Amino acid sequence: MAAALIPRQAEPPNLESPVEALGGLLTPPGLHFVRSHFPVPSIDPRRFTLRLGGCVSQGLALTLDDLRALPSVTRRLTLECAGNGRAHLPWDAAGLQWEEGAVGTADWTGVPLGVLLDRAGVGVAASHVLLQGADRGEMEEPVPSGGVIPFARSLPLPEARNALLAWEMNGGTLPALHGGPLRAVVPGCYGMASVKWLERVEVLDRPWQGYFETVDYARWEEREGLPPERVPLGPMRIKAQIVRPAPGAVLPVGEPARIEGAAWCGTGTPARVEVSTDGGATWHEADWTTAAEPGLWRLWALDWAPLRPGPARLLVRATSSEGETQPEIPDPRRGGYEISHPVPVVITVAEP
Amino acid sequence: MAAALIPRQAEPPNLESPVEALGGLLTPPGLHFVRSHFPVPSIDPRRFTLRLGGCVSQGLALTLDDLRALPSVTRRLTLECAGNGRAHLPWDAAGLQWEEGAVGTADWTGVPLGVLLDRAGVGVAASHVLLQGADRGEMEEPVPSGGVIPFARSLPLPEARNALLAWEMNGGTLPALHGGPLRAVVPGCYGMASVKWLERVEVLDRPWQGYFETVDYARWEEREGLPPERVPLGPMRIKAQIVRPAPGAVLPVGEPARIEGAAWCGTGTPARVEVSTDGGATWHEADWTTAAEPGLWRLWALDWAPLRPGPARLLVRATSSEGETQPEIPDPRRGGYEISHPVPVVITVAEP
Repeated sequence: MAAALIPRQAEPPNLESPVEALGGLLTPPGLHFVRSHFPVPSIDPRRFTLRLGGCVSQGLALTLDDLRALPSVTRRLTLECAGNGRAHLPWDAAGLQWEEGAVGTADWTGVPLGVLLDRAGVGVAASHVLLQGADRGEMEEPVPSGGVIPFARSLPLPEARNALLAWEMNGGTLPALHGGPLRAVVPGCYGMASVKWLERVEVLDRPWQGYFETVDYARWEEREGLPPERVPLGPMRIKAQIVRPAPGAVLPVGEPARIEGAAWCGTGTPARVEVSTDGGATWHEADWTTAAEPGLWRLWALDWAPLRPGPARLLVRATSSEGETQPEIPDPRRGGYEISHPVPVVITVAEP
Repeated sequence: MAAALIPRQAEPPNLESPVEALGGLLTPPGLHFVRSHFPVPSIDPRRFTLRLGGCVSQGLALTLDDLRALPSVTRRLTLECAGNGRAHLPWDAAGLQWEEGAVGTADWTGVPLGVLLDRAGVGVAASHVLLQGADRGEMEEPVPSGGVIPFARSLPLPEARNALLAWEMNGGTLPALHGGPLRAVVPGCYGMASVKWLERVEVLDRPWQGYFETVDYARWEEREGLPPERVPLGPMRIKAQIVRPAPGAVLPVGEPARIEGAAWCGTGTPARVEVSTDGGATWHEADWTTAAEPGLWRLWALDWAPLRPGPARLLVRATSSEGETQPEIPDPRRGGYEISHPVPVVITVAEP
């Protein structure tokens, strides 16, 4: 059977990558996870206009042709949904029950938002940038929105400058399911910041507190000895996943085997990866098979010759160049997000 | 049967005033509504210490005797729970189903927080003040807190200066149910800001985003043409309630009757009150029977001689000195809070 996206919700479309799609450097668009909050909006690319306004010298209104005429760049970037791995939490976390496949990597082609901001002339008071999609609807959980809202998210100005406004994915036209005709792609950030069906950019002189950064896509953080505060999710946590062998695989005892997968993070780059074949009792450093690049997952492998027959619990944990290591157990203050504890892959070692 | 508090939740204690308790200028402590988020903490008043720290020249640690030795003031203030009237919403709002009685007025005696802040020496960077209670627990709805948290709320510095730290209620020792030995009372604000069992005051150089001002005790507000933002609840909305006649009362046709009640608001004072005896078709201006004072409810009355036998729908609506009038219908962006639309009291006019 050919690999295919796994539906987690039919409408709006929420689709997960099969784990085997996560083993290469690039995920094909047809196997890249899809996260939608509201029905996919119908946008005629010929009539599409991106509006940029707010705290700028001059607002912009740009068609797709206007955008394509700008100096474009292509960046290979990994996007992970902030709820990836939610099904593996030991508590009952509301939301879509993603397993491992709400992560993927693509080549995104577009114009850095900084180019547009420079063209519009950002005011000295500017501090944040709102990205607003054309998709809209009413939210009931976890807190009712009390009416129809668009999907929208804000970023501090430096991160916003670094965002790519993309109209191509892996060298082809950006599919509507992935946010076409135009979406933001924010390097190193959880996916919710990469606003799909982008139609409005608003430069603000203050932080913005929208639905998808306060009641949703936020976590609790304790700072300076104070009770927990609500903070919007930002950079991806360091995390590694095993792609091969697959759960339930049978490996012959004594035969050389290879354990491999990917690791990624939003701050720094993956620097170290360790694998355990005995459920966490002992750890072995694995090798990187690709280079470290910010915002891009890095592939790793460990050669192993299983010696003892029976079930084996494989685990992987990564450490970033900033010294952050995956936590042993999930943190309840993160709720249903930033799920980065190692999840075992159970296989069987058998007599040949 | 003597009037008594109406339980909305047994543990922690959440008790509502009977409507007849709302007709005077003062509510007796035994009939004043009680709002608790966590179990009532057991505090020995002889060992109690209030700690004040953060962005100040010198932290303070004050016993109740230290506080009582300061120049105290007594203020008559109205407190309304932000969810008062939730049972009357036309949508299903989560939370305690308060009817009309989560509002009351008392004489609060204590020291203005501004006195303590001046003594501690507030830093020039200070902008907000965190008030933290001794009560704590874990929240599951609307968003899990991911662990035990204290009840805590912050205020902008000017509002915080105006808060009273009270140890007496109506001239007697503050009962534990009402936050004794020490609670904050914030004039004009919904009750959640009047932190009970106050044990910590922390001066901050930035806004603070705690549980009870982000996911809870907040609403959606649309500003500057942007999508809705989450804002913490603050001043009480203008609102009037009918105390007499009670729902279901029978009034003799042609006999003089009196409709009376209270009105209050957090910004300005109640300036105008109108009554309808025909379900909102026509309105008559009622008279104030007490003076306007900031933060205190104002009593009103309208003399009426019912002419037509049958059921009558009585309504009241007030307007503040700032020109704010009660909305005809509830606003979904307020969720389960700030419920201030007129709710009819249905009575019967009968042949004598």
